[in-house]
Amino acid sequence: MAETNSNELLMEKIVSLCKRRGFIFQSSEIYGGINGFWDYGPLGAELKRNIKECWWRSMTQERDDMAGLDATIIMHPDIWRASGHVETFTDPLVDCKTCKGRFRADQLAETPCPKDSRKTVAECDGEKTEARRFNLMFKTFVGPVESEENVAYLRPETAQAMFAQFKTVLEVSRRKVPFGICQIGKAFRNEINPRNFTFRSREFEQMEVEFFIRPDEVVRQLAGSVACVADRPDLGGARHTWGWEVWHKYWVEERLRWYAAIGLPRESLVEYWQKPEELAHYAKATVDILYTFPFGTQELEGVAARGDFDLAQHQKFSGKSMEYFDDEAKAKYVPHVIEPSAGVDRLALALICQAYTEDEAPNDKGQMEKRVVMRFHPRIAPIKVAVLPLLRNRPELVAKALEVRDLLRSHMAVFYDDAGAIGRRYRRQDEAGTPFGVTVDFETLGEQGPALKDTVTLRDRDTMHQERVRIGELAPRLAAAIR
Amino acid sequence: MAETNSNELLMEKIVSLCKRRGFIFQSSEIYGGINGFWDYGPLGAELKRNIKECWWRSMTQERDDMAGLDATIIMHPDIWRASGHVETFTDPLVDCKTCKGRFRADQLAETPCPKDSRKTVAECDGEKTEARRFNLMFKTFVGPVESEENVAYLRPETAQAMFAQFKTVLEVSRRKVPFGICQIGKAFRNEINPRNFTFRSREFEQMEVEFFIRPDEVVRQLAGSVACVADRPDLGGARHTWGWEVWHKYWVEERLRWYAAIGLPRESLVEYWQKPEELAHYAKATVDILYTFPFGTQELEGVAARGDFDLAQHQKFSGKSMEYFDDEAKAKYVPHVIEPSAGVDRLALALICQAYTEDEAPNDKGQMEKRVVMRFHPRIAPIKVAVLPLLRNRPELVAKALEVRDLLRSHMAVFYDDAGAIGRRYRRQDEAGTPFGVTVDFETLGEQGPALKDTVTLRDRDTMHQERVRIGELAPRLAAAIR
Repeated sequence: MAETNSNELLMEKIVSLCKRRGFIFQSSEIYGGINGFWDYGPLGAELKRNIKECWWRSMTQERDDMAGLDATIIMHPDIWRASGHVETFTDPLVDCKTCKGRFRADQLAETPCPKDSRKTVAECDGEKTEARRFNLMFKTFVGPVESEENVAYLRPETAQAMFAQFKTVLEVSRRKVPFGICQIGKAFRNEINPRNFTFRSREFEQMEVEFFIRPDEVVRQLAGSVACVADRPDLGGARHTWGWEVWHKYWVEERLRWYAAIGLPRESLVEYWQKPEELAHYAKATVDILYTFPFGTQELEGVAARGDFDLAQHQKFSGKSMEYFDDEAKAKYVPHVIEPSAGVDRLALALICQAYTEDEAPNDKGQMEKRVVMRFHPRIAPIKVAVLPLLRNRPELVAKALEVRDLLRSHMAVFYDDAGAIGRRYRRQDEAGTPFGVTVDFETLGEQGPALKDTVTLRDRDTMHQERVRIGELAPRLAAAIR
Repeated sequence: MAETNSNELLMEKIVSLCKRRGFIFQSSEIYGGINGFWDYGPLGAELKRNIKECWWRSMTQERDDMAGLDATIIMHPDIWRASGHVETFTDPLVDCKTCKGRFRADQLAETPCPKDSRKTVAECDGEKTEARRFNLMFKTFVGPVESEENVAYLRPETAQAMFAQFKTVLEVSRRKVPFGICQIGKAFRNEINPRNFTFRSREFEQMEVEFFIRPDEVVRQLAGSVACVADRPDLGGARHTWGWEVWHKYWVEERLRWYAAIGLPRESLVEYWQKPEELAHYAKATVDILYTFPFGTQELEGVAARGDFDLAQHQKFSGKSMEYFDDEAKAKYVPHVIEPSAGVDRLALALICQAYTEDEAPNDKGQMEKRVVMRFHPRIAPIKVAVLPLLRNRPELVAKALEVRDLLRSHMAVFYDDAGAIGRRYRRQDEAGTPFGVTVDFETLGEQGPALKDTVTLRDRDTMHQERVRIGELAPRLAAAIR
C-alpha cells in the first residue's frame, strides 16, 4: 500500500512535469480534451523524434539487410480481413439498460458505475445486456457515399503494410532472404478504456520490423542442419545454419542492446517469454520486453516468431503469390517472419520515467535545494546543450554567447537562455534533461588573462561537475557524446 | 498538343521510375489498390524523411523563435467547428439517378460517364439531383457508441492544433511574440477525385508554421511607425518596426530560400500573389509558391497572412482567452498570424520531377547509351554514397570495400553493391539519385604502388567525373557535401 501510494505520487509528479515543461499534454485541452489522445509539446516532440531517428538509423543505415517503407494509414479493407482484424480484433462489451453506459465485459469489477461511483458496474443494480463483440478499429468511409462497400479502417498496427507490400519491396530493393522491412508510423485503436497517461492511448506510433527468413526445412536442405538456441550459437557469427529459433533470439538480443544504447539498461527491462498457452495461435514464440512504470510492469515491445501466417493469409485473400524464389536453395517458398514491434509513445514514457530523478543542488546562494533532473541519455535528450551568458546586461558576454550558440547549432539542438540567475537557468535545463551547459563568462572574454580567453565552462547535468573547455573543442566533443 | 503529349509521356516515365525503383507505389496494390492512397518504398521513404528533416532543422534548430509541436490526428470535433471546416469544408455533389454515381457538380463537363465513357456526365442522359454540399473531412466515432456526440474527424490540416495549443506552447516554451509553432504530420481529405499521381491524394503530409506577430497597432505604439513592403525594409535586419506585410514578405523569401537550398532554384518556382477577389475572407494576403509539374503549374505551399481570425475563433468557441500579455507594450492582444503551409508529398513529387534527367553515358564497352539520372540535391538524396568493389570475386577488394562502407555508414546512408559490371552498378545508382560513387580497385589495395594505396575512385553522379581520393578524406568531404 505504501509503495502503491509512492508510485502514484511519482506518476503524478511525472505527469505534472510533462505538462509544465511541455513534454506531453492533453490533446484539444481548451475544449476539455479528448479521452485517449495526447499531444507532444516542444520538448516531447524532440524526444520522440530522437527516439524514432535512433531506431530508423539502427535499422536502415547501420544494417545492410533492411528496407524502409512508409505506407498509408488507410489501406484497402481486405488487408484487415486477411489479417484477421475484422473478425477478431474485438473486446466484449455489455450495455447497461439503466445508465445506458457501455462497458468492457471483462472489466466490470474494476469499472466504477457512472450513476454511483461507490459501486462498480459489477455491483450496481443496472440490468446488463449479454456481452457483444466490439471491433477496436476506427471505421470511416472513403469516397462520397457512406455505404458498406466504402468502409475503410484506420490501421490498428503498421505491420500489415509490410506483409502486403512484401513482393514489391523485395523486387525494388533487390534483397535476398533473410532481409527485413521496417516502418515507423501512426496506428489507432478505439480503446474502450484508455489509461495510464500515454501508455494506452487511442492514437499512437509504432516502430515495427518484419524480418523474413528461410523456413527451417530450407535451412536444413542448404546447411545440412538447423541451429537451435540450445546449441548456444554465436549470435554475432555466421547465420546460414540459423533456424527461426535462433533468429528470434537474435532479435531479442538486438532490441535489448538498442534499448541499452538509448538509456534503458538491460537491468531496467524484463524479458518475458510467453508460455505456450499464452501464445497467439499463429505464434511459435513471443518475447515481451517490459519496463517497470510507476503504474506497473508493462510491455514496450513484443518480439514474435510468426511463421508464415501473415504472408500465407495475404496470399490466400489477394490471390497473389507471396512466394520467394531462393537462388541458392533453388526452391520457392513463403518466407517465415520474426517481428520486433515497439511502441514509440510507450518508449518515450519509459524514458521519461527512467530519467526522472530528484536530488539536491546548490542554489545561487550556495544553499542545497531539491532539484528535479531528467537524466536522458544524450542521444535522445531533446536539447543537447544550453548556452548561457553569465549576465544578460553585459553586451560582450551576450555577443560571445550568441557566437557560441551559432557555432554549435549547425551540429545539434541548442537552447540559448539569458533570463534569470545562472543557478535557476541550470535548474530549468536539468528539468528539460539537457546533458550539457556552456557558460560564457568574463574569463571567456580574456578578462582574467590570455590563458582562459576563449574558454567556457562546460557543465555536466548529472554530476554538476564543471570544467574549462576551449570553444573550438566544444563542437567535436559534444557531437561525439550525442552520437 | 505536342507539348501536352510530351508532358504526358514524361509523367508516365516518372511514375514508372517511381514504381520500378521503389520511390512511390500504390497502397494495397495486391488488393487492387485504393484510390488516392500511395505508399513510399525504400528510396521514397528516405527522400521524404530527408525533406522533413531539412525543414524541421531549418525551423527549429537553426532558429530561436520557433517551438515544435506533435499533435494528434484525431482532435476534439469542436476544433473543426471553430475553424469553419464542419460548416464550409465541402464540395458540391450531384447524384445521377440513372447510374447511381456521385459527382463533383462543378466538374460534370470533365467527368466521364460511368455508363458511356464517350460522354461526360454533363452530356449523358442520366437525371441528376440538385447539388448538395459534401464535407471532405473523414469522419469516425471515438468510443464504443456510434452516436452523433461521438463523431470525430481526421484532421484535414495540421494547422488547427497549433492554434488550439497556442497558449500551452507559449507558456511551456517561455517564448515572446513574435514566435512560431511548427508541426509536421499527416492530414486527410476525402477528395472526390484524387488525381495527378501523389499530387492530390486523400492521405498526405504537411509541414506547417503558425508564426504569431504583433498587430500593426501594437507595432506602431512601440516603434512609432509600421514598416510596409513599399518601404523596402531590410528583411535580414531589425524587426521591431515590421507590420504584418513585412513579416509576410519575410516568410515568402525564407521559404523560397529554403526550396533553393534543397534543389528547387528560384527560377523553377512561381510566386503567385492571390488577387483580392481570390483571397479567403479572413486572409489579408496569400502567396502561392507553385512548381511546374508535367501536368501543370500547381501549388507546393501557401504563405497566408491570416490576421487574428483563427485564434479569435478558438477564443469564441472554447471560451478560453487567446490573449497574450506583451511585457514591452504593456498590453494584451490576440496575436496575428503568418502561415507558411507546405505539402510534403507535393514537394517530394516536385523534387522527383526536377531531378529526372535523361542524358548519355558510356556503357561497359565504352559505347554511349541513354541514361536516366535523378539529380537530387545531395541534402535530400535518399542514398548519399554507393560503395562498390571493382570485382566481387576478389576477396581483398570485397573486404576493403566493406571496410569503407563501415567507415562511412555511421555518418550517412550508404549503399553497398557488388552485383554486375561496374557500369551497370553506376547506372542503378544514377537512377536512385545517389550523388557519389566510391569504387575500390586494385590501386586501393596498393597493387599499383604505394602512392595510390588506400585511395579510391570518387565519382560524381552528374558530371560522371572521377577522381582519386584518400579513404581517410572521404567521410569529412562527403559529410560537408550533404549537410
